[in-house]
Amino acid sequence: MEKELQHKINFKTKPLGSLGMLEKLALQIGKIQNTLSPTLTNPHIIVFAGDHGIAHEGVSPFPQEVTFQMVMNFLQGGAAINSFCLQHDINLQVVDAGVNFDFDPNTALINNKVGRETASFLAAKAMTPEQYKECIENGRSVVKEVAKTGCNVIGFGEMGIGNTSPASLIMSQICNMTIEECTGRGSGVNDEQLQKKLKTLKAAKEFHGNIENADELMMTFGGFEMAQMLGAFLEAKDQGMVILVDGFITTSVFMVAAELNPSILENAVYSHQSDEGGHKRMIEHLGGEPVLKLSLRLGEGTGAAIAYPVVKSAVQFLDTMASFEDAGVSNHDEFK
Amino acid sequence: MEKELQHKINFKTKPLGSLGMLEKLALQIGKIQNTLSPTLTNPHIIVFAGDHGIAHEGVSPFPQEVTFQMVMNFLQGGAAINSFCLQHDINLQVVDAGVNFDFDPNTALINNKVGRETASFLAAKAMTPEQYKECIENGRSVVKEVAKTGCNVIGFGEMGIGNTSPASLIMSQICNMTIEECTGRGSGVNDEQLQKKLKTLKAAKEFHGNIENADELMMTFGGFEMAQMLGAFLEAKDQGMVILVDGFITTSVFMVAAELNPSILENAVYSHQSDEGGHKRMIEHLGGEPVLKLSLRLGEGTGAAIAYPVVKSAVQFLDTMASFEDAGVSNHDEFK
Repeated sequence: MEKELQHKINFKTKPLGSLGMLEKLALQIGKIQNTLSPTLTNPHIIVFAGDHGIAHEGVSPFPQEVTFQMVMNFLQGGAAINSFCLQHDINLQVVDAGVNFDFDPNTALINNKVGRETASFLAAKAMTPEQYKECIENGRSVVKEVAKTGCNVIGFGEMGIGNTSPASLIMSQICNMTIEECTGRGSGVNDEQLQKKLKTLKAAKEFHGNIENADELMMTFGGFEMAQMLGAFLEAKDQGMVILVDGFITTSVFMVAAELNPSILENAVYSHQSDEGGHKRMIEHLGGEPVLKLSLRLGEGTGAAIAYPVVKSAVQFLDTMASFEDAGVSNHDEFK
Repeated sequence: MEKELQHKINFKTKPLGSLGMLEKLALQIGKIQNTLSPTLTNPHIIVFAGDHGIAHEGVSPFPQEVTFQMVMNFLQGGAAINSFCLQHDINLQVVDAGVNFDFDPNTALINNKVGRETASFLAAKAMTPEQYKECIENGRSVVKEVAKTGCNVIGFGEMGIGNTSPASLIMSQICNMTIEECTGRGSGVNDEQLQKKLKTLKAAKEFHGNIENADELMMTFGGFEMAQMLGAFLEAKDQGMVILVDGFITTSVFMVAAELNPSILENAVYSHQSDEGGHKRMIEHLGGEPVLKLSLRLGEGTGAAIAYPVVKSAVQFLDTMASFEDAGVSNHDEFK
């Protein structure tokens, strides 16, 4: 199949290799779907929201209530992710994985609340094994429902004030890098706040020590939204979906998924390289290549949504371009 | 206007600056259109095709007849640019600026033929002053017609076997760089062909000497498709359009346009950075920043078409996202 796909790509009416990364994406998506004629149908982005005990330690310039306020904004259609999903006709779903707020039950919000916030990982594991298990099941169940609609391409986003901190700790463990190498300004801490964030994360790393087991790593530092996203990643792989990996926090969760099921790497399209310092290193660690480099650092799955049409262009050229033979154009093989 | 635009961007519900390059594009497009609510309407891509005397010197791995064969492919909808214009609902027009073939007059092709091919610049100027003038007028007239449809965003593409050679010579003059720094493999010359191409271009540069005047530079080396595109660029600026600058050849023409009317830089969005070696240096010379880096090197305006939805995302967020105030979300200014 790979050889036939590559031949189909090579004999489109264009100089050999001249569509660059789009050719690699066409090959990858064809392989994921095991077909010479891949399609991307009924795209979805799922945003998981949750609150973090660590948010009370001043690791973010925003207060915790911004998490629920932004969830309301998602439901009202006013956030960045709404804007880009609207542009590209991407189905958007929002999950309350564990936000510290009682939402009106009469909304489109998916209620998967596991708690009101995680425990601060400065002095305890962020969640119990029971909560973690529930998160994985909840995340899987969201994707199972989505798969029933015929969706074969999915991206995940997150909202949770403070969640670049667990992402940095997870990255530090998996990539075996220092806290400094894994920590950036998140949604915009100043120099003083950054020093406090670094101190807090170093204390947490020291308190918990080395954590080889990926499940335990997520339980120790992760947010409920991150653990549910982990279940969602694993299910998306099981469903054979193309997975649009988003920014720093989402990629940290994806790294945990890749520890649990390394074959998920075959399904990953790295939608963008974020402006958050560690993200470039994460993608390198995973052996990936980002589609976009727009200095985004917003979260919510926005990078996945913005990159979607570019990824779709890969499927588009494979589907609609003529071959040299069809078009009666002299091809490169004739002039070697 | 700029200050109000920046305020509108800053108070959307997102961390300050977190949409990275999209925020810069939103500001730029708002300034071009002199409004807080910019729009992109009725996008067009115009592909100019023309043949080159220099093609007979073995500077391309493809023979000259591929130019007309690809024009037929455009008209039949089978080329890469057709595929991406279809995907994004971009209006595509194809211009015969001077192809060495007699096309059926009953097609959608715009007949602006100035000649059957340019003269080889190894021993003469590529075109006469009369031909050059006709090219500029023809290019302007195509864009004037397009403007009548309400189009306010435009990209240009080209098809012309051999045309990375004139692009390299133009770049070498304007950027004051060596032929080696300005010459790549085009549509795919091998090592031996590349040496021949370098030798040919050095001979041409020596024959014509230093050419300070931008019009003369285009007349000396340019193709009919390039000179018509130059007129089109100048007219697009006069019409206040957002201009999606494409790859290596198109950017060489844009550099000539910027010599003739430096204010055109305000309207330029550099859609992508091509895999053709010199393109990165061209964009740096112009002080620009590419939207995409996908290692494309196909031409036809494909980079402009693929980047279009990303550029549109800039206008989209500015138009549809809620402000902190509208959404009742606590904003960054409150926590400084």
